[in-house]
Formats: sequence, structure tokens, C-alpha cells
Amino acid sequence: MNAIVMAGGSGTRFWPASTESLPKQFLSITGDRSMLEETIARIAPSVPAERVTVIVGRGHEAVTRRLLGERPVEILVEPTGRNTAACIGLAALHWRRRDPSAPLVVLPADHYIARSEKFNDIVTIAGMLAREGSILTLGIEPTRPETGYGYIQMEVEATGEGSRAGGACRRVVRFVEKPDLERAASYLVSGDYLWNSGIFIFTPETILEEIGRHLPDLAEGLGAIDRAIGRPDYDDVLERVYRDLPSISIDHGVMERTERRVYVIKSDIGWSDVGSWQALYDLRSDAVDKDGNLLLGAAWVEESHGNLVYSTSGRKIALLGVEGLAIVDTGEALMVADLKRSQEVKRFARRGKLGE
Amino acid sequence: MNAIVMAGGSGTRFWPASTESLPKQFLSITGDRSMLEETIARIAPSVPAERVTVIVGRGHEAVTRRLLGERPVEILVEPTGRNTAACIGLAALHWRRRDPSAPLVVLPADHYIARSEKFNDIVTIAGMLAREGSILTLGIEPTRPETGYGYIQMEVEATGEGSRAGGACRRVVRFVEKPDLERAASYLVSGDYLWNSGIFIFTPETILEEIGRHLPDLAEGLGAIDRAIGRPDYDDVLERVYRDLPSISIDHGVMERTERRVYVIKSDIGWSDVGSWQALYDLRSDAVDKDGNLLLGAAWVEESHGNLVYSTSGRKIALLGVEGLAIVDTGEALMVADLKRSQEVKRFARRGKLGE
Repeated sequence: MNAIVMAGGSGTRFWPASTESLPKQFLSITGDRSMLEETIARIAPSVPAERVTVIVGRGHEAVTRRLLGERPVEILVEPTGRNTAACIGLAALHWRRRDPSAPLVVLPADHYIARSEKFNDIVTIAGMLAREGSILTLGIEPTRPETGYGYIQMEVEATGEGSRAGGACRRVVRFVEKPDLERAASYLVSGDYLWNSGIFIFTPETILEEIGRHLPDLAEGLGAIDRAIGRPDYDDVLERVYRDLPSISIDHGVMERTERRVYVIKSDIGWSDVGSWQALYDLRSDAVDKDGNLLLGAAWVEESHGNLVYSTSGRKIALLGVEGLAIVDTGEALMVADLKRSQEVKRFARRGKLGE
Repeated sequence: MNAIVMAGGSGTRFWPASTESLPKQFLSITGDRSMLEETIARIAPSVPAERVTVIVGRGHEAVTRRLLGERPVEILVEPTGRNTAACIGLAALHWRRRDPSAPLVVLPADHYIARSEKFNDIVTIAGMLAREGSILTLGIEPTRPETGYGYIQMEVEATGEGSRAGGACRRVVRFVEKPDLERAASYLVSGDYLWNSGIFIFTPETILEEIGRHLPDLAEGLGAIDRAIGRPDYDDVLERVYRDLPSISIDHGVMERTERRVYVIKSDIGWSDVGSWQALYDLRSDAVDKDGNLLLGAAWVEESHGNLVYSTSGRKIALLGVEGLAIVDTGEALMVADLKRSQEVKRFARRGKLGE
């Protein structure tokens, strides 16, 4: 089995720690290593590092190489971000040449999964079905009417290959884009919908065939890049062609349109997309002290409870009599926020961009 | 009139902004300039800079010279801290040689006075009485049963020279050291007690005579230093003699013992000893924004109220949805505290000293 780790994201939900030049996947927030390194380590029982391709934007190539050091992973650089269909297509081209019918696991670099072993078990099962030409995706049972995620409607009963893989593997009825609150609530109640984790398993042949069928413009561009692989003008071709590729997600461009068998595996793996400081706090119960403080950095704490401290400045942080704050200290800025409102920190990233 | 500005304090009540190497009087917290500079500027209508002596500890000589720059003040360096009687005695020696019977105003460098004009009016009146050999002190009407200050009991009716200076000038019955809470409450209720501001006015002759009478050991040491003034071995003598001087406050050593006429002027001048971040917040109503935030440093504020931000790091500080915090950001440390509990920040200075 091979893997693609998509490290092209550029969010600022962890401002001021995450910035355009250092988005979330490069931060050591979910553990001692960056989320990118943790993603590669997590899949290692199924896919050794030499079978992993990391796809990253040009602006993040240097930090990626620095973090990954001597690891034998392949690093592909996107000249510019063109959404997940192009990103996956590009990596699939490379893997088709080496291993066209081996399952390819697609992993976002900035998600957290608490139960690694279970995750690898599911990936193994998914790989079996992918070898037969199916497309697999991991679905997460919703716990709230989240409007920030895509949803997957699954068949009520397991059928076909799905039943072979156990009741948790179901045919996909449809992919649904981010719903409004009312719809999200009805999905939650129905029990037929799962969150789309963005983790897919298919072979290079399968996905490139589907791109050819449903995204002909993308397929044409990828064809030009494919023909240049191994030639001295590869970089020039990539540079020229890539920026004109259509920007569309793999969900929207392929998953919602394909007539292949698509399965979703309900994956009780402790998944989180770590969407805010609050989400990080919630998933790091392993590291919270007896007063409920999550201290990711040197701190003196006096009579303070339920705070999250993250520091990369090396300075001492002293807390006295404070509750429920997110305190984030970097070389450029310092943020003190109500932890419960930490999804609003993008405001500051925006103000920063405006040069305030 | 001449002035002594005592800049020898070494508190850490404004940690992490104030440290042993940079105590409160050197911080720009009550305005755009350091408290030391503001003290010199405040007295300027009564005492021009060339008639001001700043007394400072050796460890703070460099910062003092840097802050005062080209100002024509005299800077006297104490080899070591020996409390206010020695400090005032040393400065008085120098002024006795130049201007023995001119009033000398003694000012702590780390107090705040909102009403400068009124303050100078009072100093002028006090100077008149000091010329006649009296000792004057400025008293502040108590507003709470404070246990951290000394108190002055005054006569119920103005008599003698006092009555000439208006009803606010009273003979002192006695000086009282920091009382316990019960006593402080009774002082507050009685109306006969004022807070001791630590601001005194007397002539060099008067105070040195009193030191000679009540503190003979100190007087002897000062005599040796006095004889060395203008000689090449002055620094050596000062160094040798000063560290063996008795360490006693002018209140305790002289004011509580003197049989001279001592007057206190009830001074409604907006005085504060700026004892904590909370006290600073309270007195800076001039600079508080519409949301009640006192921002002494660059800050982005979103839906936050009643916070004090002080920064010398130059970094942007972002607040989101927080209330009533003291946020202090320096090169060495960052503090986030409940503003109401800011008198407890010494805890951190202590931990710092312990090398934690």
C-alpha cells in the first residue's frame, strides 16, 4: 500500500501560532512532533515512509524538508494550490508509474486520530476493497450538527463487498457538501449520515480513470504533466500547466459524480480535524494537568484552571487567577482569548493581512 | 527651593515589567515618560531641574543617566541601600554646602500625583514654613482602611503657623507605622488621620540637626562623608562609610522623635503610590478606552473589557472576549493575571529568584 499526505492547507485557525507561512500541519500541537510528522508515523504500520508521498505548496517546501529530515518520504511540490482533485491527481500520476494497482491512502496532514491501531486496521480492510476497483472513504459518526464538514449518506444495510468487511462498511448513497444547521441537525438525528473525514483509499488507476471521466480538463493537464515525468523539462511543464488546472475538490469533482462502487467505513478512531484551540484542548486530555490546564510551553501557574497555553517564544508565561483562556505566545504576537471563542481567532489573522 | 528625588526603591509589584534591575520608577506606566522623569517634571514649577538631586542605587545609575539624558539634574549614587534617613541625610549634606537654609523637598520617584498645580501650590506654602525651621509633610485623606501605609495623626484644629497656611495645615500629633486592619479602620472613621505620602519639606540645616540629635550613629557617618566632599577620596570614603550606616526610615528615626514643630498639609492632589497593576489601572482613567481597556502597548482588542495591557516587547497583543485581566508582556516573561489579584504578582518575582 502507498500513501499521499496532503500538506497543502493554509489555515489560520491557530493564529498566532499558525500563519500563512506556518499552517497547522507544521505545528507541534497534538503531540511532541508536528501534525505532519504524526500523520506519517500513524500510517507507518500500513505504509512505511519510503512509500509515502507528501504534497506541499511551494511556500512550505523548506519547512517540510526541515521537519522530515532524513525520512525517506517523497516530497512533491505544488507550484500553486489547486484544491484536492489536482493534488491527488498529481500524486496518483507518480504512483501509477510505480504501482498502478496498489491501494493509495489519501491523508490530510492536519487531522488527529486518537486510536492509531484501529485506524490502521480500517485502512487495511479498505485497501482490500480498493484493489478490486472500489473507492473507500472513512466516515466519522457525528456528535453534533456541525456545519463546517461535508457529510456522507450511507445505505441503511451493508451489501455487496461491504458486508464482507463487516457491518461498519456501507455503500455510499451520496456525498453532501457543508449543510446548513437545520439539515445538519436532521442528518445527526437520522443516523444515516457520517462526517466526511477526507481520508480516501483507491488505486492510482481507479482515481485517474474517474478524473478522466468526470474532470476532462484536469485529466488533460495531468496528461501533459505525466508525459514530462522523467524529462528534463518536468519542472517547467509542471509550473506552466499546474496553475491552469481547474480548482475543484475530489469530493465535488469525483465522489459526487462517480458511478463506481463507493464505500464508507464508519470509523470510531477518535478523529478530529483540530479546528480550533478549543478542539485541541478537548482532544489533549492526555496532557491536561490536575487543574485542567493544557500547558504546551513553560509556565508558572497560580490558582488558574482550564487554560490552554501554547508558547514557542521560550519565555516564561505566568498565570494568576485566570480561567478558561487560550494564551498563545509566538515571536510575532501574543493572543489572550476566551478559549470557548477560539474559533473566532481568524479575525486577527485577517487584521494582520490588512497590515493593521 | 531645592529637591531630592529618591529613586532607590526596588520593588517587584509590577512584575514582570518591574524587576530588580528595573523597578517601577523607571517604567513608563503612569504616562509617556518614566515615573522618575514625571516626578522631576511635576516639581519643575517650584524647583527647576538644576536644583534637583536624584539619589539612586548603584545598580540603577546607568538606567537613570540614560533616562535623564541632558537634564541638568545632579545624580548621587548610593553604594548600597540604607533606607530613607541615610539617603536624605546624604543629599542634605550636599545641599547644606550650597544652600543651607533653603527648603528642600523630598520626593519619592515612584508616586503618582494627578493634580500637579495644586501639588506645587502646597509645596510653595510648605517651603515658607520650612524656612522658619519647621518640618512639613504632605498627608493624604484615607479612602480605605489601608494597612500598607504609615499614618499621621493631626491636631483637630489648625494652630500656630498652620493656621496662617489655611485650615488644611495642622500640627502633627504623631506618626504611626503601618497599622493592622482594625486600627486602620478606626483611623479612617476618626477623620484625624492622614496617609503619610513620604513627601517632606525642610531645610538641610533642620534635617541634619535632627539627625544629629536622634540618630547619632548616622550623623557621625554623614560627618565623615561631609568632610570628604570635594576631596579626591570622596568615592572611597562614601563606599567605606555608607554601607555601615544604620538602616532606618526618616519617619521612624526622626519624625516620630523630633520635638520640632512638624506640620502635615492635607493634600487633595490625586496621590497614589501606584502599588499594583490594579492601582495603575484605577488612576489612568485618562487613558482608558470606551470598553474600559487601558492599553499601554500595541493591541488588537475584540469584544474585551476592563483589561490592562502593558507591553515593552513590541509584539502585537490580541485580545478576544476577555475581561478584567492584567496582561504584561516583556522580553523575559509574559503574565496573564486577574487584574483584581494583581497585588499577588510578587509570587512570580519570588519564583524567578528561586530560579524556577
